[in-house]
Amino acid sequence: VDEREESIVGAKPVITLTTDFGYKDAYVGAMKGVLLTRSPGSTLVDISHEIPPQDVFRAAWVLRDSVGYFPSGTIHVVVVDPGVGTTRDILVVEWGTQIVVAPDNGVLSLLLQEREDWRCFRLERSDLALASVSNTFHGRDLFAPVAAALASGVCAPEECGSICEPHQFEFPSAILGEGIVEGQILTVDGFGNLITNVDTGHVGSLEGPVKIQIEEHHIDRIVSTYGEAQPGELVALIGSSGWLEIAVVDGSAANKLALTKGTVILTES
Amino acid sequence: VDEREESIVGAKPVITLTTDFGYKDAYVGAMKGVLLTRSPGSTLVDISHEIPPQDVFRAAWVLRDSVGYFPSGTIHVVVVDPGVGTTRDILVVEWGTQIVVAPDNGVLSLLLQEREDWRCFRLERSDLALASVSNTFHGRDLFAPVAAALASGVCAPEECGSICEPHQFEFPSAILGEGIVEGQILTVDGFGNLITNVDTGHVGSLEGPVKIQIEEHHIDRIVSTYGEAQPGELVALIGSSGWLEIAVVDGSAANKLALTKGTVILTES
Amino acid sequence: VDEREESIVGAKPVITLTTDFGYKDAYVGAMKGVLLTRSPGSTLVDISHEIPPQDVFRAAWVLRDSVGYFPSGTIHVVVVDPGVGTTRDILVVEWGTQIVVAPDNGVLSLLLQEREDWRCFRLERSDLALASVSNTFHGRDLFAPVAAALASGVCAPEECGSICEPHQFEFPSAILGEGIVEGQILTVDGFGNLITNVDTGHVGSLEGPVKIQIEEHHIDRIVSTYGEAQPGELVALIGSSGWLEIAVVDGSAANKLALTKGTVILTES
Repeated sequence: VDEREESIVGAKPVITLTTDFGYKDAYVGAMKGVLLTRSPGSTLVDISHEIPPQDVFRAAWVLRDSVGYFPSGTIHVVVVDPGVGTTRDILVVEWGTQIVVAPDNGVLSLLLQEREDWRCFRLERSDLALASVSNTFHGRDLFAPVAAALASGVCAPEECGSICEPHQFEFPSAILGEGIVEGQILTVDGFGNLITNVDTGHVGSLEGPVKIQIEEHHIDRIVSTYGEAQPGELVALIGSSGWLEIAVVDGSAANKLALTKGTVILTES
Repeated sequence: VDEREESIVGAKPVITLTTDFGYKDAYVGAMKGVLLTRSPGSTLVDISHEIPPQDVFRAAWVLRDSVGYFPSGTIHVVVVDPGVGTTRDILVVEWGTQIVVAPDNGVLSLLLQEREDWRCFRLERSDLALASVSNTFHGRDLFAPVAAALASGVCAPEECGSICEPHQFEFPSAILGEGIVEGQILTVDGFGNLITNVDTGHVGSLEGPVKIQIEEHHIDRIVSTYGEAQPGELVALIGSSGWLEIAVVDGSAANKLALTKGTVILTES
Repeated sequence: VDEREESIVGAKPVITLTTDFGYKDAYVGAMKGVLLTRSPGSTLVDISHEIPPQDVFRAAWVLRDSVGYFPSGTIHVVVVDPGVGTTRDILVVEWGTQIVVAPDNGVLSLLLQEREDWRCFRLERSDLALASVSNTFHGRDLFAPVAAALASGVCAPEECGSICEPHQFEFPSAILGEGIVEGQILTVDGFGNLITNVDTGHVGSLEGPVKIQIEEHHIDRIVSTYGEAQPGELVALIGSSGWLEIAVVDGSAANKLALTKGTVILTES
């Protein structure tokens, strides 16, 4: 907490946004207006506004791969919120020295499974909201003003409401057998790389070089970089967050294999 | 004006951008470079760069739903400008305590119809432009340097040129009858929600619950939140800006109904 | 260098990003987190994250049309990097009073051909990287921390490594004949305008008005603005960076002509 307070005092706070709003509408602009009105001088950062609509798992994945890189005191606002307007809670989570504001729908599952030093509060302060709260745009009317209050030091997470247990989904882990790992495609990135739930530990558990099968496709090695293979070639490699990825060099594996889901099997070769 | 000056002195100014430039080209970057060169330290905010090309109505709609949320002293730059290079004027509009720079093509119509305390000036200061002005990119060569001059206090709106009457289009209002409201779809948002010109006042003018007909589709109630209906269900609800929307829960009404325009009729049930 | 140091001392530095990462993934967010952690208070500007995947020429084009508009002291980070993880160098280039960090794959060719006062250094400082460097995401692990070190004054370009000669591709110039110019489409912008390698000098070399032929299509004049022609009309005009463009008024020439490449011939009429 000391570290966070210092960063709030010393420099203007960073507030990030992660939503499924896209860039075609006024939604993102309205939220940024509220943030800058109520926390003047904040640095606003878009993590993504192109989470597929209502895709809570995808948002959780993007947050896990980005939040940890931000400085102490950063406030993250997450609005992927199919339950907007219902009785689902809004969470204010102290995560290390950063803070996350998000709907209680599991979107923080992967972040919360990354570390143990977090505390989760249920928002109970209606006084922090805009004067009029719509039923369909809590990002503007609730999340943004709460984030601004946190960023500008108007209130601390523990002053937002009472401790609660956030909803979490279980991570779909790969299954380890004797000389075999059975995983699956979890998500597809913008390059068309198929990202799996097989990680470096799983790969290391197999002896020596491995063979990979994904549906009817076979790959006979794991490369270190795209440059080890030819343009157009189907490869497997460990991606930048430690997961096994299926990729096509200078191309899209999702297009070439016509797969966005599928079972991935690794065996010792 | 006092409030604006104070905000310019006290904190670095906020400058927003709303264009139809998309994100694939150098256009947005060039404008931001000019803004930061001529108004160092400004906070730049993208409202949207994905206004459909030359779609003045859509830009007007997005501005109406976002500008009002920004702090005093904010400068808004609007470049949806099919008449670029012709004799159309460039407007500098004082709108409450904010300022908008835009082409005189009706794009400010909905903003100007929102409130009465505005003054509109025609840009007559060629000295504020870049040294060389192209015929096709006034966003970089004229709008951005003028916005930077306003943001950094080099000139006030009334010093940009003489008072003028901006072009405005008339808002296409819904028609009220006896126990019936006839409206239309005005725009479609990024979720595929069909946003109509029927507002809460129109709905309130009907006695009790209402039935909605949109082309051949029938909806028998207005819900308060998406959560009141089932995934995939067609619903009507009042959106976050007060307009009746036709939506599909966790889906896209535009896709399901294959409609982007159409007549919407409300009757007492 | 004086000018740059002054701007670093006087105002917080501007750091721009140009990548092919798109907006769907955590990649851009992770880079911004690293930048703000290691250079607190920096102003981050997206030039584009929608460079087509691995399209080095397109990135070079976008940089040439935007970098020059940024203030002294700006740091530009370019991550269009099909050779990530291979032995390709990372460059730190002093370009006038600005700095560019980019892979050594030709992506700076057009920028470097714009002016002569640049110096190019090969990154040799592994101490500037993140603690753990992946094989596939040098944007986060190397480019961003190096840019932050430059922005915050931790090191100067010449302290990043030794002078080197960057890879450059040759610009595909138009061919001048007697009363004829033979050019080609180089790139297509987001409006669908076909941008050619024919410039104002080429046009001026022809006597009087010109005729333009692009594949089987004929255009009989060069207009000054879109407003001189009718909506839907195919026109030629000099674009905002001085290149001859083939456009459709209020439409897309790329769609209408079904062309993204093609030979463009100008003759005296």
